[in-house]
Amino acid sequence: MTDAYSSSRLVAGVRTGQQRSIARMISRIELGAPGVDLELAELYGSAGRAHVVGVTGAPGSGKSSLVSALAASLRRDGKLVGILAVDPSSPFSGGALLGDRIRMSDHSGDGGVYIRSMATRGALGGLARATTDAITVLDAAGMELVLVETVGVGQAEVDIVRTAHTTLVVSIPGTGDEIQTIKAGVLEIADIHVVNKADRDGANRIIRDLTGMLRLGPPTPPGEWRAPVLGTVATEGRGIDALAAALHEHYAFLAAGDGLEQRERAMASARVSAIAQNLVAERLTDSGLGDRAAQILDEVYHRTLDPFSAATALVRVTT
Amino acid sequence: MTDAYSSSRLVAGVRTGQQRSIARMISRIELGAPGVDLELAELYGSAGRAHVVGVTGAPGSGKSSLVSALAASLRRDGKLVGILAVDPSSPFSGGALLGDRIRMSDHSGDGGVYIRSMATRGALGGLARATTDAITVLDAAGMELVLVETVGVGQAEVDIVRTAHTTLVVSIPGTGDEIQTIKAGVLEIADIHVVNKADRDGANRIIRDLTGMLRLGPPTPPGEWRAPVLGTVATEGRGIDALAAALHEHYAFLAAGDGLEQRERAMASARVSAIAQNLVAERLTDSGLGDRAAQILDEVYHRTLDPFSAATALVRVTT
Repeated sequence: MTDAYSSSRLVAGVRTGQQRSIARMISRIELGAPGVDLELAELYGSAGRAHVVGVTGAPGSGKSSLVSALAASLRRDGKLVGILAVDPSSPFSGGALLGDRIRMSDHSGDGGVYIRSMATRGALGGLARATTDAITVLDAAGMELVLVETVGVGQAEVDIVRTAHTTLVVSIPGTGDEIQTIKAGVLEIADIHVVNKADRDGANRIIRDLTGMLRLGPPTPPGEWRAPVLGTVATEGRGIDALAAALHEHYAFLAAGDGLEQRERAMASARVSAIAQNLVAERLTDSGLGDRAAQILDEVYHRTLDPFSAATALVRVTT
Repeated sequence: MTDAYSSSRLVAGVRTGQQRSIARMISRIELGAPGVDLELAELYGSAGRAHVVGVTGAPGSGKSSLVSALAASLRRDGKLVGILAVDPSSPFSGGALLGDRIRMSDHSGDGGVYIRSMATRGALGGLARATTDAITVLDAAGMELVLVETVGVGQAEVDIVRTAHTTLVVSIPGTGDEIQTIKAGVLEIADIHVVNKADRDGANRIIRDLTGMLRLGPPTPPGEWRAPVLGTVATEGRGIDALAAALHEHYAFLAAGDGLEQRERAMASARVSAIAQNLVAERLTDSGLGDRAAQILDEVYHRTLDPFSAATALVRVTT
């Protein structure tokens, strides 16, 4: 798969939206297969049209059901939808996510939905990068919306959902999870708040609390987006069409002002930065070390040189 | 606090183990205060003697009580102990951890224990770096053991506990958490397995399961460390002295072979790599951009240049 002919065939397959090519391409990304960077470089020019939506929230908040119901709603609208389910808490396994098969089967036989789970393999930052690369693949394949769902609400998840145009933060009533979400400071990143399982006791309270908290912050200046708080019961499909409408509304809002350009510039910079950081990490591993770098690291080990001076000596950034 | 005089006084205060200086130095690290890199560079040469112990495990496994009980046991042995409680799931707050005050009060008035909680502020990788820097401070201040406790078991936690000589992985009986720990692949990083709350039903089963799983893997070659599985009831202090003994045993094992040098070389390299990656991240932010970098990122935004080529153009690593 590393010769130019099969590589360009794979790229062409992705561009024409062929599921097998998409699957193969994302596997190559996960594995860090040789030549994959060139394939991604080619696909990158064909991407940039999809609306990328990040979905995060406490475990147990029903994100998977929500994403599945949302995809079904978008499909009824005739949209092509890609779903990436990302699990940063699974650093070694790489296996399929729990519940993955259930959701898969919801949409099986529907060529308009592509679903894929991803887990960390290998280095720090690997999953965030692999996820943005997979978004590029789905985008270049013609998916009109790409939904990126993370399992938890840690820093890794926040970094991942930040590579989106629109971020949904999912809370649920009752179990104390709303405090967890709030504690983690994740609320700030929401463009749309979803209170799922809104048929439970306490749903009105959490919707009210969230709305109240948002009002406590600085008032939204005129012309800026005010994050709505929407109740859903994903398992019954309630509130999902309204959520889909809110997604479109947020994208339209971004596109009408300079928000879309701002986010996409930030996404592009974040991506270059992440790749550059990965390059540094790769070069500074045992297998990437030349004599000079090995000598510098040796001095750090012996504490005759400090790590900051060593890093400054090893890396040059064009500014 | 940025002039050379007060800076060198602070460094001297840390070196003589003064709690106020230690606290101030770690706050400066968290804030990324100007001049802190030079202070750390100075302290780095005085560090390298502490035994660094990482403690991770599923939420609810009683890690905080365990760390507190362990510190008490080590104090009875006359050891100076530093504790860092790290919460990567708290990207914005920076506030004190739940339960932190309880543990603090356990040791209040004991000058031989320094306890500090840390949360992410700012950039990606910020917490891991801040944690290793804080370890250096406690090490340079003469702490003989530094216990680093993380709240969860995600990738960030794994990265953090890997910057230790000895890694404890804490499981508990019953609640299904043992499966979570195993799923996350965290078992592989343990030098010592702790089954806390070992007075609960199911404790013997999980100890047996863990021991069984470890035997399932490739057999430990002669002369290599075989991770023990220890039961504890942290809240009652049961099994804690045996755990403290196992810690010392692991360190002695590392020191007797080439394990200690290997780990410390790996720790030094990881640290330089993390700082180098942070440098890249800092330089590639809006405020760090020069004309050339801004132009390259502009091309990526317009998709006339792909992110990989851009990263390669922007960063040079000495090898």
